[in-house]
Amino acid sequence: MQYPESLDRLSRELSRLPGIGKKTALRLAFGILRYTPEEAANLAEAIRQVKERIHHCNICHGFTDLGTCSVCSNQMRNKRLICVVEQPNNVFQIERSRVYQGVYHVLLGALSPLEGIGPDQLQIRSLRKRLEKDGADELILATNPTVQGEATAGFLQSELADLVPQMTRLARGLPAGGDLEYVDEITLQEAFSGRRGWHD
Amino acid sequence: MQYPESLDRLSRELSRLPGIGKKTALRLAFGILRYTPEEAANLAEAIRQVKERIHHCNICHGFTDLGTCSVCSNQMRNKRLICVVEQPNNVFQIERSRVYQGVYHVLLGALSPLEGIGPDQLQIRSLRKRLEKDGADELILATNPTVQGEATAGFLQSELADLVPQMTRLARGLPAGGDLEYVDEITLQEAFSGRRGWHD
Repeated sequence: MQYPESLDRLSRELSRLPGIGKKTALRLAFGILRYTPEEAANLAEAIRQVKERIHHCNICHGFTDLGTCSVCSNQMRNKRLICVVEQPNNVFQIERSRVYQGVYHVLLGALSPLEGIGPDQLQIRSLRKRLEKDGADELILATNPTVQGEATAGFLQSELADLVPQMTRLARGLPAGGDLEYVDEITLQEAFSGRRGWHD
Repeated sequence: MQYPESLDRLSRELSRLPGIGKKTALRLAFGILRYTPEEAANLAEAIRQVKERIHHCNICHGFTDLGTCSVCSNQMRNKRLICVVEQPNNVFQIERSRVYQGVYHVLLGALSPLEGIGPDQLQIRSLRKRLEKDGADELILATNPTVQGEATAGFLQSELADLVPQMTRLARGLPAGGDLEYVDEITLQEAFSGRRGWHD
C-alpha cells in the first residue's frame, strides 16, 4: 500500500528541513493531518507570511521584519563591539542568554571550499566596509567551533587585522550540565588548557 | 530582542504538532526561512492540499485520497481477517512490514475516560456493523501496548465476542535490535512468559 499522493508530497516537502529525515517528516505530516482545517490554513498562511515579511537587516544581515533590525537600531547597544556569527539564528541564541550588549554581523555561512563557498559568498566585504566606515574597538569571532567555522575565523583574523585593534573568540570548555563521559577529546583538551583558578 | 512577529507566529503554529516543543518549532521555522520562496510556496500548498484531499476511508476509516482505501478495495486482501488499530498511521506502519494480508479497522483513538473518550467517540459502532453485515474469521486487536490501548482491546474483546469466532492480540516481547538493559520490567515479564522453543 502506497501513501496517498498528497501525503507523500507533504512529507517530501517537510523532509527538506534541516535535521528532518524521512521518518520524522512523515510523523509531522500525520500531525498536520490531525489539525483542524483552520489550523492547517493558519500554518500554510504563517509559512507564506514569514517568507514575505522576514528579510536580512541592511546593517548586520540578521533576520528582521524591519529595514534595520531591533539590535542595530537600539541606541543602548554598544556599536563599537561587533560579534561575528555564521547564521541569523545565532543572533537570537546569544540574545536569549542576555549576556551581550554589543551588535552583530551575520556572515550567512562559513568558508567551505568543497561546497564552493569562498569569501565572496559570505558577508565579509560588507563587514570590511562597516569597519572602514564606522570602526570598532573589538570584533568577537563567534563562528561555530567546527572546521569551517575555525577556518572562517582564521581568515577574518588575518583579513581584518588592520581595521580593528582587538579580535577575540569565545571560550572553549565543558558545556554546563554536561557529563565528562560524553565530552569529546578536543573539548577536553581545551577545557584543560583553558582552566582557571577556583576564585577567578 | 524579540523574534520578529511572523517568525514567532510560524513557530507557534508548528509547536502544535505532536512531539514538537518550542525549541524544535523554532528550529523548523528557521529552516523554512532558508527555503527559497518557491520551496516555501510548495510547502504551504502541500499543507493546504493534504487537508483538502485526504479523508477517512468509508470502510476502515484509514487515510485515503479515494472514497475507499487501496487496502479495502484490493480483491487480493483477505476480508475475513480484520486488524483493529488506533490511528491511521498504524495502517501504514503495518503495511510497511509486508507481513499482513488482511484488512483493517481504524478506531481513531483509544478509550480514555479522563479525556472524555468513550466507545461512542471511537469507530466501534461501525466495526460492530461491519461484523454484523460481512462477518469475519478473526479480529486482531492491535491497539497500542498502553493502559488506554489495553483497556480498548479488553472492551472490544467482551463487546464483540458474539460476532467473531476468534480474537487475537500481537505478541509481546523484546524489540528487535534492543538491548536487555533498556527493556522495561513489564516487557521483560512478557518476554519470559511468552518464550518459545529454539526451533519453534
